[in-house]
This record gives sequence, C-alpha cells and structure tokens, in this order.
Amino acid sequence: MELDFSEPVYSSVGATERTSVCLCTLLLRVCPGVWKMLMAAVCVALLSGLQAQDHPGQVSIILLGATGDLARKYLWQGLFHLYLEEVGKGHHFRFHGTALTSTEQGQEAIAKVLESLSCPGDMASGHCAELKAQFQQLSEYRRLKTPEDYLALSKDIEAQVEHEGLRETGRIFYLSVPPFSYVDIARNINSSCRPGPSAWLRVVLEKPFGHDLHSAQQLAAELGSFFREEEMYRVDHYLGKQVVAQILPFRDQNRAALDGLWNRHHVERVEIVMKETLDAEGRTSFYEEYGVIRDVLQNHLTEVLTLVAMELPVNTSSPEAVLQHKLQAFQALRGLQRHSAVLGQYQAYSGQVRRELQKPDNFHSLTPTFAGILVHIDNLRWEGVPFILMSGKALDERVSYVRILFKNQAFCVQSEKHWVAAQSRCLPRQIIFYIGHGELDSPAVLVSRNLFRPTLPSASWKEVEGQPGLRLFGLPLSDYYAYSPVREQDAYSLLISHIFHCRKDSFVTTENLLASWVFWTPLLDSLAHEVPRFYPGGAENGQLLDFEFSGSHLSFSQLLPEQLVPGPDSAPLPSDFQVLTAKYRDSPLISAWPEELIARLAGDIEAAAVRAVRRFGEFHLALSGGSSPVALFQQLAAGHYSFPWAHTHLWLVDERCVPLWDPESNFQGLQTHLLQHVRVPHYNVHPMPVHRRQRLCAEEDQGAQAYAEEISALVTNGSFDLVLLGMGTDGHTASLFPQSPAGLDGEQLVVLTTSPSSPHQRMSLSLPLINRARKVAVLVMGRMKREIAMLVSRVGHEPKKWPISGVLPDSGQLVWYMDYDAFLG
Amino acid sequence: MELDFSEPVYSSVGATERTSVCLCTLLLRVCPGVWKMLMAAVCVALLSGLQAQDHPGQVSIILLGATGDLARKYLWQGLFHLYLEEVGKGHHFRFHGTALTSTEQGQEAIAKVLESLSCPGDMASGHCAELKAQFQQLSEYRRLKTPEDYLALSKDIEAQVEHEGLRETGRIFYLSVPPFSYVDIARNINSSCRPGPSAWLRVVLEKPFGHDLHSAQQLAAELGSFFREEEMYRVDHYLGKQVVAQILPFRDQNRAALDGLWNRHHVERVEIVMKETLDAEGRTSFYEEYGVIRDVLQNHLTEVLTLVAMELPVNTSSPEAVLQHKLQAFQALRGLQRHSAVLGQYQAYSGQVRRELQKPDNFHSLTPTFAGILVHIDNLRWEGVPFILMSGKALDERVSYVRILFKNQAFCVQSEKHWVAAQSRCLPRQIIFYIGHGELDSPAVLVSRNLFRPTLPSASWKEVEGQPGLRLFGLPLSDYYAYSPVREQDAYSLLISHIFHCRKDSFVTTENLLASWVFWTPLLDSLAHEVPRFYPGGAENGQLLDFEFSGSHLSFSQLLPEQLVPGPDSAPLPSDFQVLTAKYRDSPLISAWPEELIARLAGDIEAAAVRAVRRFGEFHLALSGGSSPVALFQQLAAGHYSFPWAHTHLWLVDERCVPLWDPESNFQGLQTHLLQHVRVPHYNVHPMPVHRRQRLCAEEDQGAQAYAEEISALVTNGSFDLVLLGMGTDGHTASLFPQSPAGLDGEQLVVLTTSPSSPHQRMSLSLPLINRARKVAVLVMGRMKREIAMLVSRVGHEPKKWPISGVLPDSGQLVWYMDYDAFLG
Repeated sequence: MELDFSEPVYSSVGATERTSVCLCTLLLRVCPGVWKMLMAAVCVALLSGLQAQDHPGQVSIILLGATGDLARKYLWQGLFHLYLEEVGKGHHFRFHGTALTSTEQGQEAIAKVLESLSCPGDMASGHCAELKAQFQQLSEYRRLKTPEDYLALSKDIEAQVEHEGLRETGRIFYLSVPPFSYVDIARNINSSCRPGPSAWLRVVLEKPFGHDLHSAQQLAAELGSFFREEEMYRVDHYLGKQVVAQILPFRDQNRAALDGLWNRHHVERVEIVMKETLDAEGRTSFYEEYGVIRDVLQNHLTEVLTLVAMELPVNTSSPEAVLQHKLQAFQALRGLQRHSAVLGQYQAYSGQVRRELQKPDNFHSLTPTFAGILVHIDNLRWEGVPFILMSGKALDERVSYVRILFKNQAFCVQSEKHWVAAQSRCLPRQIIFYIGHGELDSPAVLVSRNLFRPTLPSASWKEVEGQPGLRLFGLPLSDYYAYSPVREQDAYSLLISHIFHCRKDSFVTTENLLASWVFWTPLLDSLAHEVPRFYPGGAENGQLLDFEFSGSHLSFSQLLPEQLVPGPDSAPLPSDFQVLTAKYRDSPLISAWPEELIARLAGDIEAAAVRAVRRFGEFHLALSGGSSPVALFQQLAAGHYSFPWAHTHLWLVDERCVPLWDPESNFQGLQTHLLQHVRVPHYNVHPMPVHRRQRLCAEEDQGAQAYAEEISALVTNGSFDLVLLGMGTDGHTASLFPQSPAGLDGEQLVVLTTSPSSPHQRMSLSLPLINRARKVAVLVMGRMKREIAMLVSRVGHEPKKWPISGVLPDSGQLVWYMDYDAFLG
Repeated sequence: MELDFSEPVYSSVGATERTSVCLCTLLLRVCPGVWKMLMAAVCVALLSGLQAQDHPGQVSIILLGATGDLARKYLWQGLFHLYLEEVGKGHHFRFHGTALTSTEQGQEAIAKVLESLSCPGDMASGHCAELKAQFQQLSEYRRLKTPEDYLALSKDIEAQVEHEGLRETGRIFYLSVPPFSYVDIARNINSSCRPGPSAWLRVVLEKPFGHDLHSAQQLAAELGSFFREEEMYRVDHYLGKQVVAQILPFRDQNRAALDGLWNRHHVERVEIVMKETLDAEGRTSFYEEYGVIRDVLQNHLTEVLTLVAMELPVNTSSPEAVLQHKLQAFQALRGLQRHSAVLGQYQAYSGQVRRELQKPDNFHSLTPTFAGILVHIDNLRWEGVPFILMSGKALDERVSYVRILFKNQAFCVQSEKHWVAAQSRCLPRQIIFYIGHGELDSPAVLVSRNLFRPTLPSASWKEVEGQPGLRLFGLPLSDYYAYSPVREQDAYSLLISHIFHCRKDSFVTTENLLASWVFWTPLLDSLAHEVPRFYPGGAENGQLLDFEFSGSHLSFSQLLPEQLVPGPDSAPLPSDFQVLTAKYRDSPLISAWPEELIARLAGDIEAAAVRAVRRFGEFHLALSGGSSPVALFQQLAAGHYSFPWAHTHLWLVDERCVPLWDPESNFQGLQTHLLQHVRVPHYNVHPMPVHRRQRLCAEEDQGAQAYAEEISALVTNGSFDLVLLGMGTDGHTASLFPQSPAGLDGEQLVVLTTSPSSPHQRMSLSLPLINRARKVAVLVMGRMKREIAMLVSRVGHEPKKWPISGVLPDSGQLVWYMDYDAFLG
C-alpha cells in the first residue's frame, strides 16, 4: 500500500542526501581557514560514500524527560508525526523514551501516551492504526540516569543496528528536562553515548537558555565543550508555528510586490504582539525568576522581529544564509534604553507569588507580567520605523500576531462617502501574520485587498472563508486576502521534522542566542528596580496599559493620579524647580536639574547661532567631547528647528590622539549624536587633524599648526562665537591639564598636551584662544563634580594649578551651566 | 447713543496710533543702513506729533471699478462694514466710487448698490438705517479716467478737508479693475492724486499679479516706480477668510499644546484643499490663460501653506515679524519637479473654450482644471512631511480646508472593540481648519478630542452644535472640539478693515509674491505641454483623480487602459527594452534606457561595494561630477539598503577650482544628492583640496600633491575599487582635456588642468591613476553624446586628442554604460 501525505517536506530531495549535505555545509561553516578545503574534500567523499552505500540507515531518537508535560502533550505526537512522514523513505527509526523514574513506572506512563497518539484527520483510520502499532513497537522506555545508563543505551543501539544489518545514520537526543540538568546530561551524551564517526549527533534543547547575557554565555560555553555548534538544536517553538515559519517564504514568494514596500519609505509601523488571558498562577516559581521579557520577548518576539526585519537572502532555503542575515539584523538593532519600555503587573500576581512561594505578607514582586517595548533598527531600510513589541498576561484576549501597517501615501480626491471599500488606497493597508487564537481563531496570513494579491503555496494554504461581521485591525475580514493552512500543524511536529531535515534556520544558534541577550540584557538590568504599573486584568484594564512613543521614548498614555501627587518622601520632580540664575566666580551661573539645564543651554546656543548668522552670516561653534555634551547634542539634534545649521561651522575644543573613527575620539561622539541628524555642510565641519600621514599627533606633522591656520583663515580674529567647555574633577578644561605647561599662555592657538589619563596625547585649543571667544559656556554636571566645583569657586586666577580658573574671556561673556548635583550636591 | 460691536479690532489701541505706528515700522523696514536711526527719530516725532494733534483726521477711500461685479458683491459692503466699525472712533470718512462710465450712469448704479447694503444681524434695524443713510451721504460717484480727473479728485478732497476744518489722515485707492489698467492708474495716482506729506497713501490691488515670475517681476517693478512697498496692499481674499485669518492666532494661543506637536516627529501629513463643483463655463477667457495652478494654488493655497509651515514669531501680532517668517518659509520649500504634480481637465472644458473663445473644432486645450501637488519643506521642522495641495473644478463637492493629520504613535493594548471613541489615542488625531462649505457648511476649527482642548477667543468663536450622523475626515463630528465664528464675516470686510488698520500681514508683499512665483514658475514651465487626465466631473470622477506619492514623485493611483496600450505612433516604453550587453572599444558595453541604465549601474556599484567591504573591509569609490551622476546619486540615496556606506570612502575624480560650497563645485552636487541622504562618516569623505589657504588651486598650495598623498595613505596601491567617469562631447574625461598635456601620463597622481569652458581651472585624477583602478565605469547619456560616442568607437589609443581613449585599466575592468540616446541615437 502506497502512503500519501499531502505535504511532503523536501519531496524532491531524499532525506539521506539532505542530512548529509547539511552536515557538510555546517562543517564547512565551522571549520575556519585552510581547513575548509580539506573538509570540503572530506565532505564530498562522505557524500558520495553515503549515497553509494546501499544498506539502509537507522536513526535513533532519544527523548529525555519522556514522561513530562511537554513530552506527553506535544513531543511524542511530534515523533509519531515524523514517523508517519518518513516511514518508507529509507530510514529505520527507533524511539527511546527516557526519564529518571523506574523502568516499570516509566513503561506504564509511556504506554499510556503512545496509546493516546492521534492520526492526521485525512488518514484512513485502519491505516493509521497499523502505523501506530508499528510506532509503539519501535518505542521503548528506559531509565537514563548514570553514565553507565548512557553507555548501556549506546551499546544497545549499536548491537541492535548490527543485529538488523543496518548502518547507523544518527542519533537525536531531545532534552525535555529542566535546564539545570543540561550540563550533566550533555557530559554523559558526549562521553558515553556518541554515535560512531560516520553517523551524526543532534541534541535538542528547550528554553530557557540562560537568564541574561552572562548566564547564557556560561551555559553556551559549557554546552560548547561537549557539542559542536552544528550538533545543537535550541528550540524556540514560535519558529515552528506555521505562520511564523511562513514569514520568510512569504517574503520570498512575494518579492515582486514587496520589494518596493518593505522599507522605511512605506512601512509606518510593525507590531509584534502576544496577548494572553491566562495569568501565571501555578507557574510563579518559574515566572517570578523570569518575567514577561525573558519569557516571551527575548525569544519568541525577537525571533519574529528578525524574520520581519532581516535582509532577505537570495536563497531563503539556505539555512546558512538565513542565519547569517538574521545575525546581521541583530547588529542593526539600536540599543534599548530604560525609556524604551513600559512595564505592568496584574494586581493578583504578588498574592499568587506569596501563596505559591511562601513569601511573607509584605512581599511585593517587581516582576513584570506585561511589557511594551519600542525597537528601532538603525539601517537604511528601517531607520525611523517603530517596531512595537508587546506581550502580557491577564489581558482582555488571547491572540498573537505580527502586523505591518503601511503608510498612507495616497490622497483620495472624492469625498469619503464615495470611497470604495477594499479598493480605496486611502483605507488602511496592512499585512498581518496572524499567528493564532484571537477572533479569527486560526493561524492566517492577511493582506489588505488594496495592497496586492499575495502568492502562497496553494497546496498548503487555502483562502479563509467569510465570517460576516468579523472585523480585524479596523477592517472587515472581507477587505483582506486571507489564507490559512490547509491542515493546521502543531509547532513541535514541524520542529521535529526540521531537526530531522537539518533545517537549522528554524532553531536558535549560539550566536543568535547571544546576540539576543546582548540586545536585551542592558534593558533588563536598567529595569531591575522599576515598579511596574498595576492592572486589574482582563477587559477591566481599559486604557490603562495603552502606551505611546515620542522619538525612542515610550510611556503610558494615561498618567495615574498617584503618579501625579508625589508622596511625602518622594523626590522632587524637575518641574518643581525653576532654572536658577546666580553668580559663580563673578560670572553668570545657570543652575537647574539636568534636563532643564541642557534644554536651557541648547536654547542659548541656538539663540547665539541665530544672532551670529543674522549679523555675520555664519556661526562658529567650538565643542568639547565627553558625556555631558552628548545630552546636549541629542537635544540640539531632536528639536531646534530654526537652528541655522547650514551656516554653522563646528570646531573641536580638544581631541584625543586617536583616529577620528575610534570610539574614544571626541569627534566620533559629535558625529554619532549630532552630525548624523542635522545638515551641516561637510566643509563646515572641522575635526582636529590628530591623524596626519597615518600618524597620531606627531610634532613634525604640524597638526596643531594646521588647525590654527584653519581657524585663522575662517574665524574672524580667531574669535569663536561660542566655545563650550567642561570641567574635570582635577580642574582641567579643554585638554589643558594641571601642571602641564602647554597652552596656558603664549602665542600658540592650538597645542599638543599630555593627559594624566589614557589616551595621554591630546590636541587642544589654547587658553588664550579660548579667551578670545565672544561667549564661553562651561557645562558642569553630576555629583562627581561637586568637590571641584566647590574648590574652584574659591580659587583665584591659577591656571597652572586649575586650568579652568584661567578661563576669562578678554571681551566676551562667560556663563556657567551647572546642574544641582554639581552645584548643590 | 453708544455703539456696540461685538468684535472690535484692536480695541485697546486707537486706530490713529496704530496706523502711524505701522507706517513707521514699515518705513524703518524699507530704509536700509544708517538711515534707520534717522528715520526712527522722525517716526518718534511723527507719532508724538500725531498723537498730540487734536483736530480729527479724514480718510478718503477711492474705490476704482466701483460698479463692477466684485465691488457690487463685496467691496461696498466691506466699506460699509468698515464705516460701522470705525464711526465715532475719531476719523471722518469719505467714499468715492469711481469708474470710466459717465457720471449719471455711475451715480445710478452706485445708488442701487448703496441701497442694497445690509447691516449685521445683531444690530437694531432703526440704528442701522440711520448709519446707512450717513454712509450713503458720505459716498459719491465720479468718473476717473484722465490725469485731470485724478487731479480734480485730489483738489476736491483737499478743499473739502479744509472746508470742514479737518486734517487729512490718508487715502485708500482700491483698484477693482483689470490688471492691464494697473500701470496707468498707478501713474495717475502717483502724479496727480497723492495726499500731502503728513498723510498716508494706500493702494489696494486685486490679483492676478502676473502670469509667471517674469511678468510678476515686471508688474512689480512698474508699480514700484510709483509706490513705496508699504503703500501697496495686494489682496489675496483667502487671507481674509475667518478661518485662514485664525491659523496664526490659533497656533499662537495654543502654543503650549502645539509646541511639541507641530513638527515632522508628529505630523503625518498636511492637506490643503479647495474643491469646487462649478466649472469654468462663462469664464474660460480668463481661465484658459491661467488654469488651476495660477488661479488657486500659486496664491490661495500657497498663502495657507506658509501660515501652517512658517516658524511662529514670538509676537504674532507684529506684521513685520509675520511677513519675515513667511518669507523664510518660502526659502525652505523644496523645488517642484514635473513629477511633483498630477493634472486633470474636466471633459467638457475644451468644448466650452471652443464655444466661448471661437476656437476651431479641432482645438484641444491643455489648461488644467484640476491639480494635485506634493510639496516638501526642507527644514528640520518639516523634513519628510508631505504637504498635499489640491484644487479642482467640477469635482464632487464644494469644500475648502487645511487638514493636519498627526502620526499615530500610540499602541492600544485592548482589543479594538473596547476602544473608547473620542478618547483612544489610536483613533485619528487631526486639526482641521475648515475654511468653508462642505458638509459642515460653515467655517470652523476642528481639533480631535483625543488631541487637546483648544483655546479660541471666546468672544468671537463658539462651539459648533452637534449634527447627528455627520462624519468629517473619518470621525463623527462629536469626536472633535469644533468651533465656528460667532458671526460669520465676509473676507473682504475683514481685509478692508485690515487695510485700514495697516495689518500688512494679511496681504501679499512684493517679496512674498515673487517668492511664490519663484517657487511655482519652474513647475508651470515644465508642465506647459503636459496632457492632463480627463475626468467626467462630479461624483462620476470616482477614483479617477486619486493620486499617491512615493518619495517626491506624485502619480495617479489608477493607470488608464489607454495609457497602457501605446498607439501605433507612440514611443516605445522603457520596459519594452531589455538592458543590452555588448562591446564598445573592446570592453563590455551596457546599454539601456536612462532609468534602467542608472538602476543597473547603481546595482553594479553596490555589488562592487559589498564585495570590496567583504574582502578588504572598505570600498574606495571615486566619483565624477556633472548631471548624469546626479540621477545615479539619487538612485543610490533612495534605495540600496544594503550599501555599506559606513565602510565606503568617497573620492572625487575631478573638481572645479571653486569653493566647495559653490553650486558649480562637483562636491556640492555630491553633497546635495547623496551625502545628505546616507550615512558616510565624515572622515571617509574626501573632497579635493581646491581651496587651500583661501586660494583656489594655487600651485604653491600643493593641493594636488596633498590629495595624492591622501590617496596613497588610504587607498592600497592607489587602486580605487571603482572609478566613475563621464565623457565630454570633446572626448574629455575626468578633467583631462584634449591638447592639454597634464595628467595624461607620467608619475603624478593628481594634476591641475585647464578646461576650455569656465571655470577653467580644474583638479583631476591623472590617467595613470585612473588606470590603476580595479574597475572603471564610464557613464555616457543623452543625444548630445551621440557623435562623440560614434567617433570614439573608432579611434585607437590617442589620449592627447581624445583623453577618454586613454582609459584602459592596467589590470582592472572597464565597463561602458551608455543610454540608447547616446548609443543608438
């Protein structure tokens, strides 16, 4: 009797051939340098050898934790599905369910699971029963605990393979066990249960893969000492969901339509959402350790994000190309800030934790059960497009989706009432990967009819039937081309098939995992002590959790009354204070909280710029490096629409003797935080020539003299319109350091100096040049500056001891900008 | 009896005082340099003098064309309104209606108009009748044709002022006459009818003010020979519409709410729309000359655009500040291209023109009666925000509005069905200045309730009452805060009041007018021979006129069948051809239509960049200037998301010896069309040092040597990865010219050369350096190149005669990119 499965995987390529090919591809990938050629030769030999071999191979699948929840619910069913799919295609299978319990108990449990396995709906029941019986016969339970158990298992497999006159093709170890046991198991597999050299080993791991970057690295290193990269299959079951698995094929098969659309010019926003109605009750011992970001966002939603955002490889069925492009997508993610997130916690959560974890009555958890995150991608394709990631427990509905909303770039001339639904270009245009549940209650791919008619593989996807009255994302279902799978398939069945077929792109590689943790860990750290907003749960949440963004800053839309009225011991808000004007060293002092101070300084600089351009046609601004100016640069870049950038010349006050592209270079900070966001003509930007003739600040290259000449040529009288300085904790300013003779007086405009801290060599404007400026602003921020600010307030003109005390413009104005931390402490 | 008007204008400042102040302000503005101080002194004296004077003044208002349409419909009513407003506030008025017709006929006509004047609804009828009788008594008709008539008028005014023991305050001449008579009238007023030196003159002009920049300049120059700028009031009646006049006050009074919103970060688009249902029947003699852009967009919609887009002056009631900021807004408008517009013409139009203008049967007009225009504003506030201007005749409804749609930057966590109308931040948020008509059928200011509650002057604006079922811009009316004027006022009444009160910001100054023509004229020129899309008119237009934008390119959304099927004699479409690969001078030749050719070249450069960066970590690209590369730069800037800009070094092939900021500089083209749009690090951009020590290409400044050193330091072996060249009609390439010895051979990498065309001095890479490149691409486009392309195909290696023939990379690849025009002709 012939078997008929409607959806063969890689029907055109035999599994043997493919698995060998994939092994070789990966071998090639992990073997660096000259080994490549050698390995390639080996692979070719291996491939031809295997293909030539004619006695069939055996695959052993060892399911660890075979009596656990996941195994009983999904994994045995997935293995059975694999068997149905592959039987008769050349491989022999053996399934070993293992656990720590006794043989008798285990056998009983397994027998029960095996009995409950179900067949695909479209398979004749008699035929199914037959195959199920075969599968039961090929499956056994055994205890797997000690190194000896592993050795015994290995021997048994070898003996049985030999006895049946087969060769061994490979072994899959599926670890459905708690992560703390990974390392022991890995050691045992590696030392006692590896197959022979001509067969492959695959070890499947279930999340969590660490708790943050450090623990993930540690775990990866440990596993890496036992397995090669290509032997490990880390499961993120989201990648097995049919709609998620369809994202790349969809992008590939609809290239013609999407090529022009899939970018910042056309995409308004991307939403990646997983909403749950359930809460964490019964699971708080796990959840309390992890929270929603680690549980859902760091893995599931991030994987989906990369599938949407990555550059599409020419060949999307090359796992290697896909994995490489995914990694590149990680590189382009803009780092998350504390303000990239909003957090919530359903009100009953802390009570559940207290009950389940025996915590005291006054225990309050800070673990978020809801998070909204704003992600930006800094490449030309996605720059400026908000990617919104959201997940939470105890919400009003259960649904998961990715929604790509396109910009409305049409103008409809007729009055709205004449618009034709599903045709008008002025109605929303969107593509939705409807991962599951929700009002549609099935996985689906939706494309607005006013966008284009998508191509999906017709054998496996069918058009969704109309459901009158159903609206999704602002439009009736009938306004979409909507496709759902012909046969819904469980994520684990798909993944188990992909493990067997070596589709590594459906799994999380070590690089991928660590890249994700590199991205998420700083945010998790900065949110560690953040109090989440409490929400009642379900439909009662109302608009409480709605959030919005401005730039890269995310916040809840509704202010809560209790957040508006500070308690008795709450810190004063910045807005409680006004900018204070007073005197410091006989010059005007402007003092405020950091945000106001920066805003004030930015405003003053803009005003000076506007005045200068009006009077002289240009504005010469000399800027210092360091961290305080970064906030200023950002402020200037984000607002200040009237700033006359086209007529502004930017000069450096000082520079470290490193190449301009070195992250330590002052110029680099200026470039990243200001130049990239405003339009200063190239020739108005004047980096210091610290890197002439490929040497750093060599006297004989005369960089200082060249800069002085440039200043003399362009800046009238060498009087900058504004010089922005800082003040070091040792009283240095610009790169003029205490006890260093250079630049404090004399004729030189620009000097080479030596800093006590690395990099030691510096170039700096001299004090006499600084003092020629029309205006000098000194920005001093942070508690670290308190002592020196106090000291300098008392000293006289002693530039050799405290260079900052030598700042005293000849005829210009000096203004001190100090935040309260530096000034009041 | 006391008069009570609910909306006094400048109630807190006496009209006398204000008008003097405004005169002085404007005098100050137009007097340059040191005269300012003198004039200021005069003004102060004048002001105090006037204020001290106690006998009342007389204002004479001379309405020319007093029996015409506009005068009968609006102007007499406006003058009456002015009288009602100002009577009893210190001024005496006289109204002189004039025309060319005989006294008797004129008197009769005027008497009829005066009889029909109406009072404000809230004025007691008895009181109104009294004032109307007064007004009639103060109004007379007289013929005004010859210089003698003007002189007589002037004498009569003087005599009457003296007779009544008044002093003369000023004269307003309102020219409601065809523009061809402006100059004669202006000459007569200036020579024979100016008031004495202590009184002011104001001359009011009605559009059109020219037909394009040239004619507008001419008219302005002629008028400027008779009147000072501050004496002229050019009317754009849109500026008198209550809602339009409210735009700036609204922005001012709602600064707190709008400050953060009124910019590219929050505004998604701005629509400025005037739709008409009427067509041009009966007016085609005017319309055929002007068309919709000159009739509506160049003036009304542009004025509104500047009010929305301009930076808000600190003091919005300073006409001078407003006018100055408006002018700045013009400066920032990005130039329009042919593809910035879509044009239409209602089908009956040409027939109407034939009938009304006695044109032959085969006459077809190209005059557009519908236009959609996409405007971009290149400043930091508005960069990237589309401003859509649209107007047309024979559309489905009559309505005018400005719609500011804000970006949706919220994410609503609850399912849509739980959203609360008028509260949810996820529903559209917009501000609409509803200028008039439409479904609301009254002027109004609408602000979405989910945005903020606006402040409007409560004395003159009231909340609109609910109209169940009425939806505007996607939302029920009840979702808006909606305000309309307490008393609707005609635009001309408002403007006449503003003329009297010297509110110059409600009028079009010469600078403003010319700025508008500077903006519109290139588009009008480029569209002169464009065939508009024909539309049936009314609701039948369907989606035919809907348009959409991509970048700054506008197009109709629907392709028409007849546009898809080319007729027998229609030119072949670019897509009819494939890119052709062949040989030219024994090197590969790629030939295609211009668009494909540029796309292919851009793709090849990107591929080379990706390859180079992968192999060497960087990509050195040397680019030529000129017009053909501009299209390439734009192509590279718009797409090519994977281009490794961060690792690309940009070099110049050649440069003109002008400062880098000169529009003639090759670098300037590179900066405008490429650098501003991609992120190449500052230090990877290498302009040629043609401007060292403030001198241009002086031998002794060794610019060429410095560039050669820079190349040697950074480019391995001096081998650029790609050099892009052009070919001149004389066979030059780079800046290597025939019969010029420099740079054709020898050791020098970079040379100074002399061009036959200005600017003559050039700097150029030498032929030996070019030939070291890994790849050289020569881009040749346009019919002008046909002959030289033919010639060069036949010559051998003769660089002295044809420098291009010397391009032959030592070991690299040479590829020719020629468009069909250059190649096939």
